[in-house]
Order: sequence, then structure tokens, then C-alpha cells
Amino acid sequence: MEIVSENKAFGGTQGVYTHLSHSCSCEMTFGVFLPEEAKYGSVPVLWYLSGLTCTHENAMVKAGAQAWAAEHGIALVFPDTSPRGEKVADDDAYDLGKGAGFYVNATQTPWADHFQMWDYVAEDLPSMLQEKFPLDMSRQAITGHSMGGHGALTLAMSLPGRFRSVSAFAPICNPTGADWGKKQLSAYLGDDTDAWAKHDSSVLMLEKGFDGPVLIDQGADDQFIDLLRPETLAAAAAKRRQEFTLRMQKGYDHSYFFVSSFMEDHVAFHADALYAD
Amino acid sequence: MEIVSENKAFGGTQGVYTHLSHSCSCEMTFGVFLPEEAKYGSVPVLWYLSGLTCTHENAMVKAGAQAWAAEHGIALVFPDTSPRGEKVADDDAYDLGKGAGFYVNATQTPWADHFQMWDYVAEDLPSMLQEKFPLDMSRQAITGHSMGGHGALTLAMSLPGRFRSVSAFAPICNPTGADWGKKQLSAYLGDDTDAWAKHDSSVLMLEKGFDGPVLIDQGADDQFIDLLRPETLAAAAAKRRQEFTLRMQKGYDHSYFFVSSFMEDHVAFHADALYAD
Repeated sequence: MEIVSENKAFGGTQGVYTHLSHSCSCEMTFGVFLPEEAKYGSVPVLWYLSGLTCTHENAMVKAGAQAWAAEHGIALVFPDTSPRGEKVADDDAYDLGKGAGFYVNATQTPWADHFQMWDYVAEDLPSMLQEKFPLDMSRQAITGHSMGGHGALTLAMSLPGRFRSVSAFAPICNPTGADWGKKQLSAYLGDDTDAWAKHDSSVLMLEKGFDGPVLIDQGADDQFIDLLRPETLAAAAAKRRQEFTLRMQKGYDHSYFFVSSFMEDHVAFHADALYAD
Repeated sequence: MEIVSENKAFGGTQGVYTHLSHSCSCEMTFGVFLPEEAKYGSVPVLWYLSGLTCTHENAMVKAGAQAWAAEHGIALVFPDTSPRGEKVADDDAYDLGKGAGFYVNATQTPWADHFQMWDYVAEDLPSMLQEKFPLDMSRQAITGHSMGGHGALTLAMSLPGRFRSVSAFAPICNPTGADWGKKQLSAYLGDDTDAWAKHDSSVLMLEKGFDGPVLIDQGADDQFIDLLRPETLAAAAAKRRQEFTLRMQKGYDHSYFFVSSFMEDHVAFHADALYAD
């Protein structure tokens, strides 16, 4: 692991690091915010998974999470959204290839060599974080925006016991039924729709649910809302009697202005779960 | 109008009154809580519609709303749930007839003579309240529990401009599709399913929505949840992009212990809307 940068922020440290990812077979960059409390012992951790076109950096500089994480003594982890580098396959479209890993393990050519983002976020990066940072891995929570909200929800439901709480900002809720999803799942996973279903949070919500609280915020004026299909996840969560809160926020769009407006609530929501005993 | 009782409560007055209802052609009883501020001028008003088997009294003594209404300077109105008296038709079942008016205007025998609860709550009682109490009728909000949640939602969506905000505790969300609904709508309205649809908040949500914020709390362990069908309203509200919050509250059942646990949030939610200007 190499240090790219470390800046003092909110009494703690915002760092950016690179490491060789075994899952993705390339060098990956990620951000970690450590609150001041991390100087004295291990701290709980909140993962933030980003959306299409983002790197590790967007949320780190625009989501406004550090202020609230510092207040609650929680670390933040900002992974990248895809493998990177000259050897890594790409596509001209913004929503496939680099910046669009979709948090799946690709099985199809030309993606399978590097696009193993599920394993990267579920196994590779956590192992390294545990080794290198003062994080209490028994207290993890996860959130994300758009494609990252999809990642947060599917990881949380598929790895029971890993995360104490999950939240999402404007998540892609039903990728097997929308153009943000069918295109990527088809490219990365081929025509195996059983494999697709494992990456659809509305399907997972009906089948498994999540053993903990769920918070979802969605902008009512989100320009991409028809691709996100919040109604499918809303129905599934209500049908399952899942512990959850869904808020349709009047006038908000899909941007980081929306995300940052409700970040305080999300960090407080996760803090409740992370500090419960 | 006659005074049945008036008790000092939370600095204001909890009163119970009777009057002759023109809509229901019988004497009706209702409760009004006036906060201390009502001594000096008119105050905003929050309606609370009750559920099956309730009278005006249940919520008045068990929902714990007065403390928060006093804090926000808001009046509360607690109507009865059906016409009453010896001349009023009834049924042996708890969920039809007295205590089960369902907030509709009955068209069928033997109900049509007195069961005009929609008009009672929408027209009859408001006229009298406006005349007799220091209420600012330009600042009204509405909530309710179970059948009363159904009433609150259907009234709010069907009377645009009347209420600034609507909330519900464990509302009957889709009566045209569940046994809490089909039985009563059939008895009161006959087989005119177009008339039923006007009293189904999931249908109204898709067709009209509500021009203001909506808050819904539902207990995840509600023993009647399969009759309430929150998933139908959740999907409709999300599909409409309605400004709303839906919370599935882990471990809570259908009782007033559930209602009173979240009453503070509901009154604060309505206060935000009632004092916005």
C-alpha cells in the first residue's frame, strides 16, 4: 500500500492510498477518513460506494460526510468504482467499463480479467484495511449513491452479519428491470439472468431482506428516477415487513447537492447501529 | 353544541362535546384539545381519525398527542368513527356498523340513513368547529390510525387545499384489495367498484397524489399488516414521486403503544407544515 496524500480534516485525517488489488489484478486507489479517535484505538467504519463515472474522489470531496463522521468518531472508506489502468478494458459509453463496475464479478470477455468489483469490495479491500488501519471490523455499515447505492444494498443483503446497517441515496433499485442494469449485467454476466437476480436489491429484499435497519433517500425531481425504480424496492421492503425508512425528498435531483443535504441523517443513522450493543 | 366535559390538560383544555349532526342525522360526540395559545387567538388544527371499534375517546386518552400539540400550539380534533344511538343500524361484527363507519357516505340499506361519515368529517363537523372554537381553518392537517389512517389519506387527497400535511399510523392502504375494506365498501357502497376506488388511498395516490408532505409509520410486527397492505401504498407513492416518508418500525404492533411511540414525530411533522409561510 502506498500513500498518495494525507490531509488533516475535521480533527482527523483524509488519506488517499493505492494498492495492488488481487481481485481486480491492477492497482486500485481508495480514500480513508480516520476521525481523531482513531489515534487512540480502533473505530467503526462506514463504507461509501460511489456511482457511475465516479472515482474514489467524488464523494470524498463533495458528499460532506467527514464532518458528521468526525462528530460520531466513525471512519469512512471510499473505494473506486472500477478497475483502472491501460490494460483494463473500457467502453466509449459512460455507463460501461471504467467508472461503471456495477459491483459485480464479471464473467464475460473482455471484462472478466479485471472487473471483479464485488470481490474487491467484499474481500480484497476489507482484508487490507483491517491490516493497515485502526478499524473495528466488527462494526461496519455501508451506504452509497446511485450505482453505489445498488452496491451497498446488494452487498449488505448478500453478506449477512457483515454490516449492521445499510443506507442509500437514490439507489439503482431494480437493475434487472431497467436500462441502468440490463445493459451492464448483460455485458458483465452474459445472459444468465439467475446471476443478474443476485445483484438486484428489489429481488434480494423479497428473498432475503436485511437483518438491520435500512434508510433510503430519493429525490422526487431526480432526472434519472425512471431508471432507478424506487417503487419496486419500496414495495418489496414493505411486503417483507423489513425495518426501513424511505424518504421521497421533494425538489431534490440526483446530484451531490442532494447527497450532501441528507448526509448528516445517514451518518447519524449508521452511528446508532454502529454504537448499539 | 353541548359540553360533556372540559379538563385542563398541558396548559390548555381537553373538551368533549356533543352536537346534532345533519350529515349523520343523529347526535355525535367529539373531542377537542385547545392549547393555551387558543386563549389569545386562533390556532392551527390537527385532525385525528380513529380506527375500528374506537369512539372519540380512545385516541384522546391513549395516543399521547396533547403533550406535543401543546408544545407546538396546535389544536386537536377527535371525531367519533360512526353514527351512534338506538336508531342507528348496526352489525354483530366489530368491523361493520357502529365503530366502523370507514369514512364513506353509505348508499345502501340499512346504512344510508346515518352512515354519512365522509360528509360528517369533511363538512358537518368543520363548519361547527369553525363557529364554536378559535381555530384557524386555513391551517389544517390530518392524521389517523388504521381505518382512521385510511380516512386521513383519502380525505387529504380528495380535498385538495384543505390539509397542508397528512400522516397515518398503520393505515388501511388498499381497502379495495383486502378484507378490511371489501366487506365494508361492499356493505356501505354496494357493488359499485368505481365508488370503492374513491376510498382507496393506493388508487388515489397513483391518480391524484397529495400536494404536501406525507408521513406514514407502520409496525413491522403489526398483527393486521396483511389486511393493511402498506406495500401497495408504498409502491404507489414511490411511483408517483410523491413527497413522502414511510417508516417500517421494527417490533411494533397495531396498538396505541405503537401510535403513542411515534406521536411526537407526527405532531412535529404537521407543525412544520402548519407553520410554514
